Amino acid sequence: MNFPGNWNTMQLDAQGRLRHFLTVEGLPRRILTDILDTADSFVVVGEQPVKKVPLLRGKTIVNLFFETSTRTRTTFELAAKRLSADVLNINVSTSATAKGESLLDTQKNLEAMHTDMFVVRHQHSGASHFMAQHAAPHVSIINAGDGQHAHPTQAMLDMLTIRRHKGAFDSLCVAIVGDILHSRVARSQIHALNTLGVGEVRVIAPRTLLPVDIESLGTRVFTSLSQGLAGVDVVIMLRLQKERMQSALLPSEHEYFQRYGLTEEKLALARPDALVMHPGPINRGVEIASSVADGPQSVILRQVSYGIAVRMAVMSMAMGRSPGARETAAKEPE
Amino acid sequence: MNFPGNWNTMQLDAQGRLRHFLTVEGLPRRILTDILDTADSFVVVGEQPVKKVPLLRGKTIVNLFFETSTRTRTTFELAAKRLSADVLNINVSTSATAKGESLLDTQKNLEAMHTDMFVVRHQHSGASHFMAQHAAPHVSIINAGDGQHAHPTQAMLDMLTIRRHKGAFDSLCVAIVGDILHSRVARSQIHALNTLGVGEVRVIAPRTLLPVDIESLGTRVFTSLSQGLAGVDVVIMLRLQKERMQSALLPSEHEYFQRYGLTEEKLALARPDALVMHPGPINRGVEIASSVADGPQSVILRQVSYGIAVRMAVMSMAMGRSPGARETAAKEPE
Amino acid sequence: MNFPGNWNTMQLDAQGRLRHFLTVEGLPRRILTDILDTADSFVVVGEQPVKKVPLLRGKTIVNLFFETSTRTRTTFELAAKRLSADVLNINVSTSATAKGESLLDTQKNLEAMHTDMFVVRHQHSGASHFMAQHAAPHVSIINAGDGQHAHPTQAMLDMLTIRRHKGAFDSLCVAIVGDILHSRVARSQIHALNTLGVGEVRVIAPRTLLPVDIESLGTRVFTSLSQGLAGVDVVIMLRLQKERMQSALLPSEHEYFQRYGLTEEKLALARPDALVMHPGPINRGVEIASSVADGPQSVILRQVSYGIAVRMAVMSMAMGRSPGARETAAKEPE
Repeated sequence: MNFPGNWNTMQLDAQGRLRHFLTVEGLPRRILTDILDTADSFVVVGEQPVKKVPLLRGKTIVNLFFETSTRTRTTFELAAKRLSADVLNINVSTSATAKGESLLDTQKNLEAMHTDMFVVRHQHSGASHFMAQHAAPHVSIINAGDGQHAHPTQAMLDMLTIRRHKGAFDSLCVAIVGDILHSRVARSQIHALNTLGVGEVRVIAPRTLLPVDIESLGTRVFTSLSQGLAGVDVVIMLRLQKERMQSALLPSEHEYFQRYGLTEEKLALARPDALVMHPGPINRGVEIASSVADGPQSVILRQVSYGIAVRMAVMSMAMGRSPGARETAAKEPE
Repeated sequence: MNFPGNWNTMQLDAQGRLRHFLTVEGLPRRILTDILDTADSFVVVGEQPVKKVPLLRGKTIVNLFFETSTRTRTTFELAAKRLSADVLNINVSTSATAKGESLLDTQKNLEAMHTDMFVVRHQHSGASHFMAQHAAPHVSIINAGDGQHAHPTQAMLDMLTIRRHKGAFDSLCVAIVGDILHSRVARSQIHALNTLGVGEVRVIAPRTLLPVDIESLGTRVFTSLSQGLAGVDVVIMLRLQKERMQSALLPSEHEYFQRYGLTEEKLALARPDALVMHPGPINRGVEIASSVADGPQSVILRQVSYGIAVRMAVMSMAMGRSPGARETAAKEPE
Repeated sequence: MNFPGNWNTMQLDAQGRLRHFLTVEGLPRRILTDILDTADSFVVVGEQPVKKVPLLRGKTIVNLFFETSTRTRTTFELAAKRLSADVLNINVSTSATAKGESLLDTQKNLEAMHTDMFVVRHQHSGASHFMAQHAAPHVSIINAGDGQHAHPTQAMLDMLTIRRHKGAFDSLCVAIVGDILHSRVARSQIHALNTLGVGEVRVIAPRTLLPVDIESLGTRVFTSLSQGLAGVDVVIMLRLQKERMQSALLPSEHEYFQRYGLTEEKLALARPDALVMHPGPINRGVEIASSVADGPQSVILRQVSYGIAVRMAVMSMAMGRSPGARETAAKEPE
């Protein structure tokens, strides 16, 4: 996961506008706030009877998934269709690379078809970064999850959820609980929270599920859920990958739930108006009790709704970087 | 298959209009006739050069298939696209539930994305009923086949086929031939025919393929094809699932065809203008002779055409229940 | 591969316009030129900000793939969507035929749904020809590759690439290099080049990869790459199917590359402005060196771009055969 030095700046174009969205890391607060503001304006689109705006009409967006994820693919497909784009779903595990074609050749072939944007899910960290480095001038890359590195639209939908429910970030204490070590979501969340100036970021996990450099990311570490939850405003639970148990990093599901599962009793240690969040899909009774997941403090399903708005925001911002694009959309022939 | 008592009424909203379409059973004749009348108006759409109407523009329809059925999925996808809706195809066998997510969590997540309608195919009886019970206020559920329980759009396309070819229902004698026991189609057909006031419904099958309560459904039972076909106006052949043979419920395909296969000779026992129908795909030489399937009395392909119109009717009626929906569609921004 | 005598004429309607596009073989030069001229006009559509024209709005196009080919399916899907058609993707290996339905029954069922065009990929030579023979009057069939027989849109995109880079055909010498024997692309290319009046067509391959009747197709045969490339204007490399090596038709990849791989040294034997073409996906280091594939004479990615334009041309010509279709598209309700 050693990326070149231009990692932090290659996401912006010469005018400082978002071109690719690969990681939250290194993006200025101005861009993150712009994404949240734009997403706010798209939240209402999902609530209208006609849930469509013509912003990306005539654009072709490719969902290029090297890893199956129906849930993530669905949210991007919906976002693209509500922006009136044409969508191509390509599941690469069953296609070109089976014939031995390289990632670069796949990308260049699809670009030659005058596609405008790639939403990329890949099992290897840095895959979307690689594509961005090689992208044609008119093409944008959106990272929909790469290895254990980043999942930036997930992090931004979490930020939108927090901002819409809590207002400002600066006075908040946010705890992230669970498998920090293997979670691309957690890494992206920590970067976003720090950039947006949140008061305190806590991570709560067993030692075996914490990265070695975790303090250097600007977090306060707890190995006790009870201690970590004291006084927090937001609790973000992570999904426990069941594979971890088999690999002996963890004891049984039952024991994990005893120590790190979020129950009503544990939640009572946080502030009374604390939000409960989870990226989904949830493992009921493993990392979270059903009564909490479905309880009054849970905003888990709101996160899903805001996820569409955030993806619409990122897509339209990345495509709007050439000022002509939106203007043309307005005077399209049909 | 014990469903709660509100089964019969939960499909209608407070104004008595169709909201969900789960089963034909218990729906009033007024609703069935309304579906047929609406479908009649959509038949012409399929014959126009531009086969599209903007009724559901900006709506998101999810084809949620827990059982693969390309044929059924295709008809619903086409119907939705001709109504200008956006369509999401989700094959759940390869997606979220593989991660252990429950049906309810899948539904609630997709609802949170502001989807408007679920077209559900499921191997378990009552799955679409369960979803309707838990549906958000703005969401409609359409049953595209649940276990051995119901397949109501198939039954309604059969009714449309009969009405368009025969006019009124009251003087007709309709025979359903084949594996009544395992057929969700047959159950739905019997309910629809009785509600629409057909003169007589006959079922013709070997004893091993008849449910025990078959007479109570308002049918006349025959185990001889020759006797059962005498004087009928409509013959509906059912597809023989080849698995039945292996499970020893039936002798060989050859023997089945000898006794229950529809040949020209057998068909001659029915009225000279009798219609031959089949839900497809047909097993030529098993339940029906090719000369009959392709013969002058066969309306099997018309059924397929009418199937699109019936699905467009059900979808637009279910969505049109909030009067604002259609009005907004007319003044949509684009 | 014995097709009836009407093979050559059944592709045209009574007015001599393109109705089906099954093979280049036997089509008059007028039609091929018409395809190229129409495609020229679509090349610019791919370069506009809004890459959509309303020509086929309200038409339903079925991608009926009996063989998986994400790349080819993608190009047809994109072409159809840019013409504003509705697209159905049907992968038949996982659908109806698994239930034993015949090709004809599948076709007739989909036609009954008022679909307008089938884009067919099939492992058997003549499958699209069979469908064209049985097509309903309003339906068009486009061959997207049938067995080892033909792949006519690929051939036409190659012709468009040559014409746009070289102008006229009559003075050109074109060499096709590689597995001529098993290539449906090569057969279609040879017919197209001869019909368009190219100066000379050469085929370059080991004896084991040449059909016995190759000279009768109007080609000059070389078994030496160096001799065959001398003075040519266009080099078309074919993809080497790795299965051929296993079946003992060929020695190792390494030895094949030594004898028939296109390197910079070999390419220097052709004319200095010779084009390098390849239908993709390329096997780098097997039939072509990376330095050549990515070099200044390569137009491989332009071929991909032109492929969309050619498919849009063929689709709109086939649908435009009834003059009412385009007129109606212009005055569509929405």
